[in-house]
Parts: sequence; C-alpha cells; structure tokens
Amino acid sequence: MRARRPLIFEAMMLINCVAYQNGEKLADIQPHEIHNYIVKPDCFVWVALFEPDHATLQLMQAEFDLHPLAVEDASHGHQRPKIEEYGVSLFAVLHMIERTEGELRSGEVAIFVGRNYILSVRTRAEKGFAEVRTRCENEPELLKRGSGYVLYALMDAVVDRYFPILHELETELERIEEQIFANTSPRANIEALYALKQRLMVCRHAVAPLLEGLGNVTGARVPIICAGMQEYFRDISDHLMRLNQTIESVRDTISTAISVNLSMINLQESENMKRLAAYAALIAVPTLIAGIYGMNFDHMPELRWRFGYAVAMGVMAIVDLYLFYRFRKAKWL
Amino acid sequence: MRARRPLIFEAMMLINCVAYQNGEKLADIQPHEIHNYIVKPDCFVWVALFEPDHATLQLMQAEFDLHPLAVEDASHGHQRPKIEEYGVSLFAVLHMIERTEGELRSGEVAIFVGRNYILSVRTRAEKGFAEVRTRCENEPELLKRGSGYVLYALMDAVVDRYFPILHELETELERIEEQIFANTSPRANIEALYALKQRLMVCRHAVAPLLEGLGNVTGARVPIICAGMQEYFRDISDHLMRLNQTIESVRDTISTAISVNLSMINLQESENMKRLAAYAALIAVPTLIAGIYGMNFDHMPELRWRFGYAVAMGVMAIVDLYLFYRFRKAKWL
Amino acid sequence: MRARRPLIFEAMMLINCVAYQNGEKLADIQPHEIHNYIVKPDCFVWVALFEPDHATLQLMQAEFDLHPLAVEDASHGHQRPKIEEYGVSLFAVLHMIERTEGELRSGEVAIFVGRNYILSVRTRAEKGFAEVRTRCENEPELLKRGSGYVLYALMDAVVDRYFPILHELETELERIEEQIFANTSPRANIEALYALKQRLMVCRHAVAPLLEGLGNVTGARVPIICAGMQEYFRDISDHLMRLNQTIESVRDTISTAISVNLSMINLQESENMKRLAAYAALIAVPTLIAGIYGMNFDHMPELRWRFGYAVAMGVMAIVDLYLFYRFRKAKWL
Amino acid sequence: MRARRPLIFEAMMLINCVAYQNGEKLADIQPHEIHNYIVKPDCFVWVALFEPDHATLQLMQAEFDLHPLAVEDASHGHQRPKIEEYGVSLFAVLHMIERTEGELRSGEVAIFVGRNYILSVRTRAEKGFAEVRTRCENEPELLKRGSGYVLYALMDAVVDRYFPILHELETELERIEEQIFANTSPRANIEALYALKQRLMVCRHAVAPLLEGLGNVTGARVPIICAGMQEYFRDISDHLMRLNQTIESVRDTISTAISVNLSMINLQESENMKRLAAYAALIAVPTLIAGIYGMNFDHMPELRWRFGYAVAMGVMAIVDLYLFYRFRKAKWL
Amino acid sequence: MRARRPLIFEAMMLINCVAYQNGEKLADIQPHEIHNYIVKPDCFVWVALFEPDHATLQLMQAEFDLHPLAVEDASHGHQRPKIEEYGVSLFAVLHMIERTEGELRSGEVAIFVGRNYILSVRTRAEKGFAEVRTRCENEPELLKRGSGYVLYALMDAVVDRYFPILHELETELERIEEQIFANTSPRANIEALYALKQRLMVCRHAVAPLLEGLGNVTGARVPIICAGMQEYFRDISDHLMRLNQTIESVRDTISTAISVNLSMINLQESENMKRLAAYAALIAVPTLIAGIYGMNFDHMPELRWRFGYAVAMGVMAIVDLYLFYRFRKAKWL
Repeated sequence: MRARRPLIFEAMMLINCVAYQNGEKLADIQPHEIHNYIVKPDCFVWVALFEPDHATLQLMQAEFDLHPLAVEDASHGHQRPKIEEYGVSLFAVLHMIERTEGELRSGEVAIFVGRNYILSVRTRAEKGFAEVRTRCENEPELLKRGSGYVLYALMDAVVDRYFPILHELETELERIEEQIFANTSPRANIEALYALKQRLMVCRHAVAPLLEGLGNVTGARVPIICAGMQEYFRDISDHLMRLNQTIESVRDTISTAISVNLSMINLQESENMKRLAAYAALIAVPTLIAGIYGMNFDHMPELRWRFGYAVAMGVMAIVDLYLFYRFRKAKWL
Repeated sequence: MRARRPLIFEAMMLINCVAYQNGEKLADIQPHEIHNYIVKPDCFVWVALFEPDHATLQLMQAEFDLHPLAVEDASHGHQRPKIEEYGVSLFAVLHMIERTEGELRSGEVAIFVGRNYILSVRTRAEKGFAEVRTRCENEPELLKRGSGYVLYALMDAVVDRYFPILHELETELERIEEQIFANTSPRANIEALYALKQRLMVCRHAVAPLLEGLGNVTGARVPIICAGMQEYFRDISDHLMRLNQTIESVRDTISTAISVNLSMINLQESENMKRLAAYAALIAVPTLIAGIYGMNFDHMPELRWRFGYAVAMGVMAIVDLYLFYRFRKAKWL
Repeated sequence: MRARRPLIFEAMMLINCVAYQNGEKLADIQPHEIHNYIVKPDCFVWVALFEPDHATLQLMQAEFDLHPLAVEDASHGHQRPKIEEYGVSLFAVLHMIERTEGELRSGEVAIFVGRNYILSVRTRAEKGFAEVRTRCENEPELLKRGSGYVLYALMDAVVDRYFPILHELETELERIEEQIFANTSPRANIEALYALKQRLMVCRHAVAPLLEGLGNVTGARVPIICAGMQEYFRDISDHLMRLNQTIESVRDTISTAISVNLSMINLQESENMKRLAAYAALIAVPTLIAGIYGMNFDHMPELRWRFGYAVAMGVMAIVDLYLFYRFRKAKWL
Repeated sequence: MRARRPLIFEAMMLINCVAYQNGEKLADIQPHEIHNYIVKPDCFVWVALFEPDHATLQLMQAEFDLHPLAVEDASHGHQRPKIEEYGVSLFAVLHMIERTEGELRSGEVAIFVGRNYILSVRTRAEKGFAEVRTRCENEPELLKRGSGYVLYALMDAVVDRYFPILHELETELERIEEQIFANTSPRANIEALYALKQRLMVCRHAVAPLLEGLGNVTGARVPIICAGMQEYFRDISDHLMRLNQTIESVRDTISTAISVNLSMINLQESENMKRLAAYAALIAVPTLIAGIYGMNFDHMPELRWRFGYAVAMGVMAIVDLYLFYRFRKAKWL
Repeated sequence: MRARRPLIFEAMMLINCVAYQNGEKLADIQPHEIHNYIVKPDCFVWVALFEPDHATLQLMQAEFDLHPLAVEDASHGHQRPKIEEYGVSLFAVLHMIERTEGELRSGEVAIFVGRNYILSVRTRAEKGFAEVRTRCENEPELLKRGSGYVLYALMDAVVDRYFPILHELETELERIEEQIFANTSPRANIEALYALKQRLMVCRHAVAPLLEGLGNVTGARVPIICAGMQEYFRDISDHLMRLNQTIESVRDTISTAISVNLSMINLQESENMKRLAAYAALIAVPTLIAGIYGMNFDHMPELRWRFGYAVAMGVMAIVDLYLFYRFRKAKWL
C-alpha cells in the first residue's frame, strides 16, 4: 500500500493545521503561514501529519526549529515510547496499537511540543485524533492552557485506546483457561497461549517505557510546558500503571497456564495409559485361556467335556466382567 | 441486581452525613447544609456514600470543591489502590475484597479528605463502615485530630479485613498440599491451585499498590492532613507489609506446588507403568508356554505324557508365582 | 498447654526485673518500683517478661510510657520482625525459631527500649535470655553503655540462634541431594524438598525483614539510643546478611533439586520402559515362532521332522540369547 | 592468523593519524609528530589503531599521557563494555559483534578521549571506522565540537551495527517458532533455541553494561569532554535501551519456546501412544478370536460349519472396522 | 591436619613481618618490635599470618589497636566477603577459592589496614601472597603510597585468582553442553550440571558481596587510607563486575541446560517408544496370521493347499517388509 500511494493519500499527509488563541480556534492555516502565528501572544499552532514525506518534515523542522535528532527519530519510526526534553521543548513518541485480523499492529505517533506549537506525526496507524481536537475545541477553558494541554489530551487518547485492546487479551486468556481445564485441545491451547503472549508483549512495549518516560513530566522537576498540569499527567501515569499491572498479571498467568497445560497433557496421557492397559488386560486374559485350550496335550479332560467350549467361553466372559468391574471401580475405565 | 435497583436502595446511596467538632458529634446534617459546617473552626464533616449516582457526586464535588480528575476516578471505579495529593487534600482508593460463593469479589472505596471534610464512596462492596464510625465516636480524644484520623481509621478497617481473606487462602493451600502428597486427584489439585492463584492475585492487587502509595504519607514529606500521625499510618504500612509477605510466600508456594504436582503425576504414571508391566509379564509368560504346547510337531514327547497338561499348568503357575514374588520384592506390585 | 496454664507458669510471667547503674547491678526490684529507678542518673531497668497477661503489659505501659500501637503489637503477636522508632524510644520485634519434633516453630520477642529502660516480651518460645543477662553483667564496661547495649546483646543472641537451625536445613538438603542421585525414593524426595522449603521460609521470614529494619539503626541517621554503637549493630547486620545469603542459596538449590528430581523420575521411567520393552521382545519372538508351528497347514515339513520340536525350541533359545546380548550391549538390560 | 602476521599487516596497525582544527582536516601526521599538534588551540588529533603491538601502545601512552590502568585494559582486551573517567579524560570500551559462519564473534574497540585527542584501538574485529571518519569530515560544523563529537560518532556507529545482528536473531527465532508448532523436528528446535540463546547473550553482554556506563555521560554530572552534547549521548542511550528491550523480549520468548517445545514433545508422545494403542487393539482383537477357534475342544459346533472359517474372518473384519471407526471418531487415528 | 599440627607448622603461623619506609624495605622485624616502627613518619609495617593461634592474634590486636569485633571475625572465619570501616582503619574479608580434587574449597583472608600497618590473616588456603610482596617491593614508587596500595595489591591478587577458576567452570559447562546434545548420558549430565551449579555458587559467594562492599571504597566518600587510589580500586571493581557477569551468565545457562536436558530425556523416550512400537507391530502382525491358520475349522481351504504354508510365511514376510519400509520412511526405525 505504501509502495504506490495514490495521489489522494498524498493530500492526506497534512491532516490539519490550525492556529488557536486563548483556547479559541483562530483559523485553519497553511503550513507556510505558521511562522506568522507562533509569534503572536497566547497563540499556538496545532499541526497533525500522517506519514509525511521528507520535504514536509523538513518544512516543519524549519518552521518550528525542531531538533535534528528528534526529527530523525520521527522519520525513521520504530522508536521506543519516550518523552524527551530538547531545551524547553518536548519530544514524545507513543505506540498506537491497532487490531487487524486478530493480529496486533503497532504504529507510532511522534509529538513535538513547544511553548507555541504542537505537531503530531502519525505513522502506521489508521485511527487519527480528530475526536481529540473536537473535544479540546469544546473545552476552551482547558485549551487555554496551551500546547501542554493538547499534549495531555493526545496522550490520554492514545493511552485510553490501550484498555479495550488489553481487555480483549484478558478475555482471550479466560477462554483458553476454560479449554485447558476442559482438556479438549492441548495443542491449540499452547499455540493460543504463545500467540497471546506475543500480543501481550506488543502492549507491554507500548506501556512500560512510556510509564518510565512519564516520570520526567510528573517528577520533581517538571518541564515548563507541563507546569501546573502535573495532576493531569499523573492521571495518565496512573492509567499506565493500571495497564502495566494488568499486563504483568496476564503475563504471569500465561506462564502458569503453560505449565498447567503441560501438567494436563501429562495427566491426560497418564489416564489414557490406564484406560489402554485396562483394555489390554480385557483382551490378554481370554487370549491366555484360549492359548491354554489350544495346547495339544493328549490328556486334557476339559477338551472332552460336552460343554467344555461353553464353559471356557463362560470363564473368559466372567473373568473379563470381573476385571471390567475392578477397573471401573478404580476409575481406569 | 444493579440493573433494577429498588427504591429503598436509592435511599441507601447516602449512608451518613455527620458534622463533628473537637471530636464530638455535632449533628446529622443534610448534604446541602455541608457548606455551613465546614467553615466552622475545628469542625469537619464526614460523609459516607454507597454507589452514588452522578447528581449526588456532582453535589459533593461542589460542596467540597473536589478535583474533577479525582471525582472522575471515583465515579468510573476499577481504579488501582492509590493515595494521591491534590493540593492540600488527599484522594485515596482502596480495594475491598469480599467473598461470595467461594469467589473473591473486589469492590472499591474512594476517600476524599480535606482539612475539614472526609467523604467515602463505596462501590461493589456489601460491608460498610458503620463500626468504624462507632469506634471513632467512642474515642473523642483521637477523633479530635480531625479528618486525618478518620482516614487512618477507615484505611485500618479496610486493611484489617484483608487478613481473614488471606488466612483462608493459606488454609486452602494447606488443604491442597495434603491432597498433592496423598496423590488422590491431581486434576482437581491443578484446578484448585490455579483458582487459588487467581484469588491470590485479587489480594495482591489490593495490597501491593496501596503499600507503595502509603510511602507518600509516611515518607519524608508528609501531607499536612496526616501531620503528627505518621506512626499510625506506619502501622497500616506495617500490616500491609505483613500481608504482602504472606502473599509473596503463598505465591511462591503455589508455583512450587504446581511443579511438585507435575512431578507427582509423572511419578504416578511411572508407578502405574511398572504395575502394568508386571501384570503383562504374568500373562505373557504362560501365553508363551501355551503357545509352545499348541505347536503341531509330530514328535513332542510331553504332549503324550499322562500328566503333561497338569505339569504344563503347574509350570505356568510356578513361573507366575516366582515372577509375582520378584515384582513384589522390587515394589512393582 | 496455653489453655490450662498451671499456676507456677503464671508466676513465670515476670522472669526478671533488675536495675543497673554504671554497668553494675543495683538490685532486683519489683515492677511497681520501676519509676523510682528510671529517674536516677546513669541508671536503667531491664525487665524480661514471658507471655504476660493484659494487666502486666498495662502496668509496663504505664511505668515506661510505652506507645499504645507498640504495646498492641506486642500483645497481639504474629508481627513481622522490625525495628521502629517511637520518638526517642525504639520498638523491635524479632522472631525466635525453635525446633520441636522436626518442625520449626516461630515464636517472638518484642523489645521496648528507652534511654533508661529495656523491656523484653517473649512469646511462644521456650528458651529465654538468662545467659545474655549473665554475659552482660560480666562485662560492666560494655553494660555501662546502657540500654542500647542490652538491645544489641539480645538481638545478637537471637540472631546467633538462627545459625544452627539453618545449618541443619543445609545438612538436610545435602541428605536429600544424595538420595536424588541415588534415585531411591523420588516420592520421599519431593515431600522432603517441599517440607524443607516450608521450613526455610520460616527462617527467611525471621531474617529478611529484620535485615531491612536494621538499616534504620546502622544507616545515616542513627537513633540516639544506639549512638556510638553502630559497629555493633553493623555486626548483627553482617550476620543477617550471611544468613540471608545462605537462605537464598538453599532456596535456589531446592528449586534446582525439584526440577532435577523431575528429570530423574522421567529418566527412571525411560530406563524402565527400555527394560520392559526388552523383556517383552524376549517373550514375543518365541510366541510368534510357537504360533507359526501351531498353524494347521497339511504340508508343513518341519512338523514331521524327528527333531523338529527340539530345533524349534533351539531356535527360540538362540534368538532370545542373541536379543539378550544385543539389549545388554545397548544397556537396556 | 595472529601467530604469523605478515608484514603488510604490521603496517595496518596504524590505520590513520590525522590532526583537525576547527572541524577541518589539517594533515595526515606521523605518530611522533602528535605532541606538536595537540598543543595548538582548537586542534585535536584522531588516531585509529588495529591490534597494535606493545611498542605502539607505549608510544601512544607517552604522546597522550594515558593512564596505565586504561592502557593495560586496552592491551589485555576481553573487557566489559564501560565508560570510565580518568581525571578529565575518558576511557570507553565497546564490544564489536561480527558474524562469521553463523557464529557471533565479539571483538572490542577501546577509545581514549582527551580534550585534544581521540584514540581508538580495535581488536578482533574486521570492520573499521573509515566511514565514520568520512561522515565526520563531511560535517565540519559538528566536528568543530571536538573529540567529544568523534566519541559520539564512533559509539553511534558501533551501536548502529548491533541492530542488524539482533534483527537476524529475531528472524531466526521466528523461524524456530514456526517449526515448533509444525512439530517437525523437536530435537533440532531445542538445539537451535539453545544456540540462539548463546548468541543472544553475546549481544546482551555488549549492550547492557554499555547502557549502564552511559549513565555517567548523560546523567547529572557530565564529563567536560561531553559538555553540551548530552542530547547526542542520550540518543545512543535510547538506541541501547531499544536494543536491550528487544534482547530481554527475545530472551523471554526463548524461555517460553523451550517450555512450549517440551509440551509439544509430550503432546506428540501422547498422540503417538494413542495411535499405537489403536493399532494394537486392531491386531489384538482378531488374535483373540483366532485363539478361541484354535482351541481343541471336541465340541465346538462352529468349527464344523461349512462357512465357519469365513464367518470367523468376517467377524474379525467387522470388529476391526467398527474399532477403526470408533478410533477415527475419537481422533486417535 | 589441623588436629595435630606439627611444630614446623606453628613456626609457619608468622609468614612475614616487614617494615617499609617511603616504599623501601627497612627491615624484617619481630612482632614485638612493631610499635617501634609504626610511629616513624612515612613508615608502615606489613604482617602476614597463616592460621594464627589465639595468642598471636591477641598480640596483633594490642600492637595495632584492632577493633575487637574485627578480630573476632578474623578468628572465627567463615565470614562473608566485606570491606568495613572501623574509624579510620579498614577491615576486609576476601574468599580464596582453591581447587582440590575437582572440588572447590573456599578459604579466607582477613586484612586489617591502618594508616601505618597492614595485617593479612589467611585461613584454609594453601597459596600465600609472597609474589604480591615481591611485586610491591619492585615498584617502590607505588609502594610509597602506603598501606592502601598494599591493600589494593592483595585484593587485586585474590580477585585475579578467581578468573582461571571460573574459566574452568565455563569449560566444564561447554563439555556438558556437548554431551546433552550428543544425548549420551542424561543421568551423568544432570549430576554434572548440579555439581557445576554448586561450584558456581562458591564463586558467586566470593564475588558478589565483595563487589557490593567495594562500593564503599570507590563511592562518593572514600576512606582516607584509599584516598587518591580510587582508580585502582575501581579497576578491581571492574574485574569483579566482569566475573559477576560471567557467573550470572553461566548460572542462567545451567538452568536452561537442565530444562533442555529434561526435554532431551523426554524426546529420547518418545523416540524409543516409536521404535519399540514399530518392532511390536513387526511381531504382532505375523502372530495374528499364525493365529488365524492355527484355527481348527474343518473347512479352511488354504490349509489343504500344497504351498499353503509357504504362502502364509511369504505373506508374513511381505507384510513385515512393507511395515518396515513404512516405519523407516516415517523415521520410526
């Protein structure tokens, strides 16, 4: 899809570019006008890009004076989630997890935040942040706080999207647990647990480093952009801790489930063996009796009996019934 | 039950609303009178809610000037246990674990504490805090310390309720341990250990984060509400550490028990196999002898013997008795 | 035993109550005289209680002005080991591990220490501290340092008693290890390892939290009672670290031993199976030969041979000898 | 190869020795001229050695006044990755991982950095740093920052080379995972997982200690040589954290894969046993019927029937067909 | 050996007692002369003891004014490695690991260091420090730094002796790994891995606590004796970290190897079972055919055939050849 991106897609590279003042939308502006707006007091520009090409990123770097290392990270992609300070500006990378055909796909959003701008660069992720923008524009008294609040709103939106993903993994785990104890398909269970663990790791790689990185924003020395908003970022941190706890818990349960499944396999084998052994006995004992009366001794009185054959068959049946009764009682059959 | 909550339940949303002054109860008051009391010196209001609706929470937020993020947490529920500062006020969330039909159900209590108020919001938990209120009112010299002391009393009550829950899990573990070594029902043991671990995790999620959160109240910089009461909160911390140690210990033992159970399954299988093999031998050897005398050679002198048949049967019996004796001695039978 | 405690035992509640001045014993005193002595300069009172009743503890609380939370801990029992500061006084809880019929029983000693008093409350532990008192009285130049030195002497005595207990566990582990590789009784080994781990945990719960708690006494800010004695408490800390290392090491070895034992069970089963299979072959092959000559074809020349029977038996023997030789060589028999 | 190093190789010991001023190359110089250049303002000398002999290292030590312990480390080789300060100069050791015939080989580069010099000593590693030098010379405005920037450039190059190595290990792991669930060659899988873990450890030993060591350069107190370049070193740190996360993740997955493989082996065995048992039953039942009609009773009416034989064979076939159908249905066949 | 120590051994208790001034050897002196030398400026005394008796230690305590707790530690032995400060003097304990008949034996050296003395007390270790003394005396410019340098030299020598020990364990591990995959002797492998782990733990107990203890000497506040020598002690620390990393790595590999070995045992069993089953089939099928033609039906046309017997035998052979071919193809044989 990326190889031959149609023209309409190119146009979608720039999702939005809006200037705000005192929490109110000023105007939709063109990228080359940005420098006119970011000098105004209490004004900031919010730009949203989707998989931009090199030239667009270059333009943004020039307009906002972004640090080359941060721009390089954003264009390379495949970064760990993080929040870094470059002087007074911040650079954040978050993973965006989306579900496509059972698989979890990990995209990214890189966010550059300065006193008077916020730029989000989304890559390999379908769902954008239109509803975040709408929510922000509906709460001008909060949007008035500036780019720091938009950073919070974006991060909050990304983190909130992790919950349903993780909840689905928990549901899947419960489904597998039931199957393990129902003992229906141990092979499918192992594969499902293994796949579940892989998907869990995708979540973990999104959550754990971000939680760590958030320490810089909620800790003792807070970046100036986030000043007065620690409680908001602590709230995100709290959500991440909750996610993290769930992840660790699911992870621990998967390990236990794998070893429980192994126990169940061994147990099943053990029970099968007992059943087999019981049936083997039910066949082997009559075979022995038949063998005895197949011997060619001249003097075997039973062979001459009128009902010798019937008696022999009867003995076989009685012995087998008795064995069957015993095996049943011992729960081998 | 929550879906069609009868009217009488609605009335139960507000459990209590009482004003205290200098450790003595002033009066049962109405929610809308709160602002009249919280301005009085040495006076605080203690409100207890049970699964309040949105309007009630809104009213409380207005009366006590609660932080919107904290109120949102309390109304959403499903929070991690935590103790957070919002300016000079505190917001605590604790899990309340109750037993319903063998299952552990995790409810919550959210507590808002300010200099002159304390508000508890209980959700998904049957048992309230009536006895805490009684105990506090019987100790006016302690209640005089204000809302911080009530916070301590509530937390102490919640934490004390963890002990019997955990003790039961320990008892359950001991029961399973006996069964493992009695080797009666490995399948039931695995399921019981797995279920026990799940229940233990419910306790762990209640205890561990709270212990962490308490560090803020007992550490170097103590919130003003808890000033002079560090020893009390340290006592709770100490209880939580004890609980935590027990949880870790039980958890560790469960892991060991699972792998011991696996060993026992393998061992049982191994012993069964030996017993089966012994019985197989007891049948196979006479079968071979019978087969030999079933051969149709013209010249097999034994076949002509008068007691050939009896001798053959005797040999079978003797060989089997000998084998039986050997297997017994080797503890295979 | 506790249920119907004879009268003589009641009298044993107060083990000792002695006043010391400048490291020399002043007098055996009565509990109600304590307040006369603790006001004297360079004088301190050393009281030893054994499972005191409520009244006695109340009296002590009054005489020494003990903190109610600490007294509550001492009377409840079942505390984690800890060292806590209550203002200028210290409250320590230590576990006392004793061996009764192979089991480890964990008792407690709670120690209250102030500038001019030291009170030890021993519970569920047979062995007292008479020899500590004797040793202290024989070293007046050390006893002169006051109640802090007695605290050290008591703690040192308790910690020193852990060493033989732990040494026994190590010896037991070595015994089990030998059995594992001798492969005699895998079932007994598992049970022994499991029981050993349980006993090890008793030691661990005595050692690890105390080591942690000692950090407060040997760290940067030392309580006034222990001033100038850090090297002594660091010595205890060092002993505890040694114990802790041994415990962790034994614990790790137990885990390994459990999984090694599982390997040995599987290996044993595997070897048994090979032996069984070999024996099965030794029976099955002659059975097949016998079956062939039991066929009723009209034209089977061998059946007519003079030595057909002997030849058939010889072939069976030769085939079995050959198989036996092959199985021996392959170490299956 | 090292034993009889040809002359041409000796000449390769000194890869390069260049003086730079204000980010521009001054001249290729001889080692003995170094002291003439390092006294010039804004000038530094960049020397690259490959497996130097003792005399060459001695010369460098004299020219740059290197610390004897650091020189000893560089000449001994086999150091952990590290970054150490010796006064105002830095000494760094990095592992260089190269692939030779499937194996990972760990070489080293030791880097001495002072205000006016940088010396790299490469050992047991094929690939040099020619392209780093080229890149630096093409960016004079960055090279102007001095030896600290060259240190960054060298470290960045080494760390960047870890990514493809690790990516290959991830690909290998995915290949093994497929094989595990395809269940084709469990023995090869175990060996491959074990070998993969060994190779992963080589990467881990390169990455983890370096990440730790980098803390000194990016932390609170930054060495003077790296002043103003924290963002660059933090970028390396970030790359290392990403590598580290991947390593831990692969490591965790390998553990899971080993235990999953064990489960698959047991499962396969269990399924084989069921198939075998089914076939055994298909043979044993007709054998029993044949045995019965091989009995020599005088009165066995069936034996006299015209179609007795055919009926017997038919019964055998019908019983086997029925059993086959049952086993198929139970998925044993 | 210790029980009846011959006279010559007693004389060996005092290995050496030498006074140094400004890095030059002054004289071999007698223990009772020590106090004459330690008062001289820039002079220090270096005493080396081997398993001293109580009197000798008492003498040293008096001459050097050693702390009683440190002397007690040195005479008791069996200490954890540590570095402790007693006022301005240091007390260090190091483990000395020696190989005797495949076993690792852990001896000790206790080192007392003051401004003007250094005393080493070696216990349960054959190899002394003669070569350390020689090396020090050959480097007077370093020895001039005083007792702190001797401490470094002794510690460096002890730590350097760990490397070959650990290297041998690594070689042993590689040997076992080969055997695991060659699958020759699983029982011997388990025992070897278990023994290897025990020996590794001996190394770990020598290395890990010492590394921890060294933090005091290389950290922020350096003892006066080691002042100006942090780089030397950091070098030891670096060696210990390298050892520690190797130990952790070997330990991790042993765990993996144990579980891999278990997999190999199961795999081997599984393969054996398949082979057995194949052979069982090769016998069971002809047995069934023989059984059929052993039936006594009057009308079995084949029995009358001229070549009925030969045909029956041929059918048996053909069926077995076909089965053999199938089993071969499926790699069961």
